[in-house]
Parts: sequence; C-alpha cells; structure tokens
Amino acid sequence: MATAGKVIKCKAAVAWEPNKPLIMEEIEVAPPEAHEIRIKIIATGVCHTDLYHLFEGKHKDGFPAVLGHEGAGIVESVGPGVTRFKPGDKVIPLFISQCRECRFCKHPQTNLCEKSWSSERYDIMSTTTSRFTCRGQKILQFMGTSTFSEYTVLNEISVAKIHDSAPLDKVCLLGCGIATGYGAAVNTAKVQPGSTCAVFGLGAVGLAAVMGCKAAGASRIIAVDVNKDKFPKAKVFGATDFVNPKDHDKPISQVLAEMTNGGVDFSLECVGNTSVMRSALESCVKGWGVSVLVGWTDMDDFSARPIQLIAGRTWKGSFFGGFNKDGVPKLVDDYMAKKLKLDEFITHNMMLNQVNDAIDLMKTGKCIRSVLHVSKV
Amino acid sequence: MATAGKVIKCKAAVAWEPNKPLIMEEIEVAPPEAHEIRIKIIATGVCHTDLYHLFEGKHKDGFPAVLGHEGAGIVESVGPGVTRFKPGDKVIPLFISQCRECRFCKHPQTNLCEKSWSSERYDIMSTTTSRFTCRGQKILQFMGTSTFSEYTVLNEISVAKIHDSAPLDKVCLLGCGIATGYGAAVNTAKVQPGSTCAVFGLGAVGLAAVMGCKAAGASRIIAVDVNKDKFPKAKVFGATDFVNPKDHDKPISQVLAEMTNGGVDFSLECVGNTSVMRSALESCVKGWGVSVLVGWTDMDDFSARPIQLIAGRTWKGSFFGGFNKDGVPKLVDDYMAKKLKLDEFITHNMMLNQVNDAIDLMKTGKCIRSVLHVSKV
Repeated sequence: MATAGKVIKCKAAVAWEPNKPLIMEEIEVAPPEAHEIRIKIIATGVCHTDLYHLFEGKHKDGFPAVLGHEGAGIVESVGPGVTRFKPGDKVIPLFISQCRECRFCKHPQTNLCEKSWSSERYDIMSTTTSRFTCRGQKILQFMGTSTFSEYTVLNEISVAKIHDSAPLDKVCLLGCGIATGYGAAVNTAKVQPGSTCAVFGLGAVGLAAVMGCKAAGASRIIAVDVNKDKFPKAKVFGATDFVNPKDHDKPISQVLAEMTNGGVDFSLECVGNTSVMRSALESCVKGWGVSVLVGWTDMDDFSARPIQLIAGRTWKGSFFGGFNKDGVPKLVDDYMAKKLKLDEFITHNMMLNQVNDAIDLMKTGKCIRSVLHVSKV
Repeated sequence: MATAGKVIKCKAAVAWEPNKPLIMEEIEVAPPEAHEIRIKIIATGVCHTDLYHLFEGKHKDGFPAVLGHEGAGIVESVGPGVTRFKPGDKVIPLFISQCRECRFCKHPQTNLCEKSWSSERYDIMSTTTSRFTCRGQKILQFMGTSTFSEYTVLNEISVAKIHDSAPLDKVCLLGCGIATGYGAAVNTAKVQPGSTCAVFGLGAVGLAAVMGCKAAGASRIIAVDVNKDKFPKAKVFGATDFVNPKDHDKPISQVLAEMTNGGVDFSLECVGNTSVMRSALESCVKGWGVSVLVGWTDMDDFSARPIQLIAGRTWKGSFFGGFNKDGVPKLVDDYMAKKLKLDEFITHNMMLNQVNDAIDLMKTGKCIRSVLHVSKV
C-alpha cells in the first residue's frame, strides 16, 4: 500500500490521565519494525478492562495511552521477517502471544507465552513498546493492542489471521470478552455433559460463559446477577435458571445448594469481585466442584475457609479463556458455521469518536457490548 | 469370643475438657449394633489433629471424648448384618467411610462418602453416635474412631480389612497421617514424572508427601521447614533440596522461584497454616502449577491475589489423601512389599498410659510419630 514504510497520521482516542474522558487526537503510527505488523483497525468492542484501567485509575503509571483490546482489522503493512501475513489479511490483534518456542508455548496446559506483554507485568496491566506518538509525546499501547485507533502495530506473535470473509465488526468480540468467558467454561473448567453450572455476573464475559457451558453439554445452567434485566439475554445463550441475590435473605451459596442438592458441579465468577469469588467457590458441591475465576481484579485478596478445598473443591483461574493464538481463527470459523453466537452480544453500534458514550453505557450497565466502528474497509 | 454381645469394661484415655491432660479411665464399651464392628485396638499413632482438638481447645462442644484416629486392631465381635468381617480379622478403623451407594461413593473423583461422620459436620470435627460410657456419662467418639481405647465400635463402612500378617503397630499409621500425605501427592496433586515439587512442613504428613512425590517420579523434591533438624529425615523419604525460610530475607516463594526457573510444578502445604498456604501457592510456576492444601485448620481464611489463579495456577485440597476405604488395604500391601516406608516415621514407641507424654513430644516437635501400644494381640 502507499502508506507502507511511512509514518501514518490517523485518529485515535487518547487517555491522557486517569478518570478523564478520552480525547480524539491525531496520532503518528510508526511503520512496523522486524516481525511487527501494522493493522488498520475496522471495529473494536469496549470491554470493562478498559474501564478498569481508565476510569477507576488503578494504574497511574500507564498514561498517556491508547486503550482498546478487543478489535479486528486488516493488515496494512508488515515489517522485515514477517512471512505468514501480507497486506489485506484479516486479523485479530491479541493481548496474548504465541511464540511457539518458549516452555509455556510448548506446554499443553497453558496459553501464557512468556513473550507476551503480560508475562512480566501482568499484575499492572502493562504496556509494550509503543509505535505511537502524539503532540511530540510517546503514547503507550494498552495491553499491547490499542484498538481505539485507526492504526496500531503489534508483533506477529500476537496477531491471529482469520477467515477472509469474517465480518470484522462482529468477530472483534473474540479478541477478549467472548473468548474469555466461553473458554473459561470449555477449556478451564472443562464443563462436563449433563453437569450443573452456575455463572456469576451476566455481562458479556458471563453470557459467553453461559454459552460455553451449553456448548459443553451442561444440562442446567444457573445465571446469577443482581440485575434481573440481564436474565432474558442469559436465556438466549442457554441459561435454564435465574437467581437474583437481592431476592434472597440467605447466602447465595445456600440458595444454590438448595436448588441443586448440595451445590453445582462448576461455577464461573465473571464479575471480578472477591466476595463473589468466595460465593462462587462455596456454591460448588463438595467432592468434585470446580470454581473458575474469570473476572479481573488486582486490588484485593480472594479468600475462603480451607475446608472448602480440603472437602474436594478445586479453584482455578482463566486468562483469555485458555485459548492461544491458534484458537482464535477456529472461534471465528465456529461463528461463521453458526456454532457460536456473537451478534446477540452486541447491543450498540457507534463510531470511534463516540467512545466516551460507549464507556458511559458500560458504567451504567445499560449495554452488553458496544462495537465501535473505527475505519471503513 | 466370650465377650461377644456383652458390655466390655476396658481402659481408655478420656479427654474430659479442653487444654487438660487425658485421664486414663475404665470405660464401658457397648456391643456393636446393626452393621457395626467392635474392635480391639492394638496400636495407635498420635496425630496433630488430636492435639488440635484437645489442647488448642478449638471445639469445646466435643467433650468428654476419647481421641485417637490412627489405629489398627482386631475384630472382637460384629453386630447383626455384618457379613464381610469376622472376629479375628485385622482391621484399620477409619474416619472416612465408603457406603458404595451414595452419589459421592459412585463418583470417581471423591472419597467423601456422605454417610461419614464428616459429611455433615466436618467443619467442627464432629463425633458420631457413641458406644462409650464412663462414670455414668456418655463419652463421644472423636472422628468416629476413638483409638485411644482398648476397644472401640465403628460402622462397617468405616472399617478397612487388611492383610492377616500386617504388623498392626506399624500399619496403624495408614489410618491418617501417612495415607493423607502420600495420597495428597499421588492422588490429589497427581504429581507427574520428572516434575519439581515443594513440600511445606516436614511432620509425618509432609514426609509422607515427600515419599508420594518420589513414588510418582518427581525428579526434584524441595523440602521446606523452619526446623532444620527435619531435613535428614526428609532425605530418607526422597527430598533432594532443603530450604529453611529462616535462612532467607526474601519471601520463600521468591527463593523457590529462583531455584526452579519460575516456580515448582506442584506444592503441598502440610502445616495447616494459612500464611504457608499462600506461600505454597505463590511458589508454583504460572501456567500449570498445582498447590494442594493438606494441613488442617479451620480458624482462619486462606487467601491470595486473584492473578495467582488467573495466571494458570490451580488450588486444591486433600482429605485423607483422596483414598477411600478400598485404598487402605492396598497401602498395607505396598508396605509389606516394601514399596512404602512406615517404620522410618516412628520415632517413639510407648504404652497407651503414656499418651500425655506422646502429646508433649508432638507439641515440642521432638518426634515424627509416636506409636502407642494399646492391647496385646
């Protein structure tokens, strides 16, 4: 393309400081260096992790930055040494990587490649080396992805090449929330056919977890949320029972135990709240119950009584649903084969410059997923 | 036998109240009722769980009681309906049960039969219906076993029949500590050949965990204890590295991470201390590390940062090492085939009336296991 090898000036939503709206700016995006790919972002979801970083101001050392980590786009140009991608390829930029060489990539049980931005500093939602500048200042790339920009640059080990016909304004959701929730059920919890599951929190991640439980053959899926308006949507994804903790005077674990003869086989915490994590564990049946942390928080400890584990429960966690880079194109194929729902998550479509409206919607719980349309194909 | 069907008067060590020495008393042991077995106890180990109950006074509603839950004996008589046991059989009374009918017995992943004393009240170290009286007062059976008595009565679902030639003053240890530690490694953690393990706490349970790691084929077993005098014994059971947290200024998880390129594959907490539980989890490698709670406490929460699990670690717990009743005779056979060490755990042999001395030895960490000789064969 005509832009290859040159700095691209484009629009991006820049977070200059915590707890402030994003500002639409013209930024400069440098050409990709060795093994890097410059991507024209077509669409991006808005995920709570962006909010966590931005509005809740948890990570003050992460500014200024371009947020966004749930995007899809088209390869604009590739740096030296890139052989598996070419301009025009449809891709999903990822906050995980898969170098195929480290001991983590070679281990069958993990997707935590040690070359990922998250391998060293996952605890503070770090940024990678950035190719962005704005007003003469270096701008950080949040989670290494920065999809709230018309163009971004990633190392090829963090880019998934997907089907040529994939609708980017839908499959962008596979860059984070949907893969995370769905994979937490099928890959991490390893939900079994005929089992009883509980999903705590019915945002996009939780709804995707419901979908994962159903895909794995669960016979009963109990959807738990304090917002009853989420229940009809949970039913669409396969939930069979609905529990609002506000409707009960007793602990939710007791409510679920009474509904299920002692507790569920699998529970998934999709809120990112340590009290809910405890409830989710305690809602599992003793002997073989498995509880998975899916929601993200790093501000507090999670805790429980030792007997909860001694009595046979297992506590696990899921990062990007346990999927590696190779898993993402397969999810796209599953969507295109109608084995996986995506459209049903999307409640709002907006333009990139409406990003602050999308964030407000999320803060007030009025959306499942907003998709921002960033560039035209 | 001449005693069948009659009340037996015999000696037992009775705990009348918390934080007081046991008193040797003459007690009356009623004949076994339907599906029960009266057992002449030959020998019993003294386990920290007895101490926890007794001296630390955690469970004030559990008195008066006969403690002891790590014994071996000979069937004296059986109640109506018992067909698989006969007088003269060598047995190990268990604090777990295996009814073979409940959904827990039918599930391949658990040993927590719901007919066990622990199924309803495991959180407070409950007692079962007792066949003991003393001075006109009902005496409770601690953990359903009460092996600090010349005779005791259990339901047949909690009695394991063992090899006729088994030395009861050795295999009694399979009634709790050794099975618990060994099984935590082989059954619960499922230690893999070639893996690196860390065992926290080198009492009998921890040493048995070391032995389990070795039996499972671990190539490196790091023994961790604040008492360096335990290290030579740990070496006997297969430990390859020895770490005393007192020798280091930094967190033990960091010490182990540096020794192992990022953390161990498996860690086993054999202390029963919630701070150590956290360290054991944090000592695991991200991606696939598995940490198992083996030590018992119910006074505090255990806790950690969510990222510890999100980054791929698994937290589990082990109860009686995951063995069911059928597993115990096999352990006895393994001991007799010299595949399992037991003699090496026994540092002291005493008579039942020296039980308070044995408890003192345990309190001061001067023994691994004391075996009390209760009756002559």
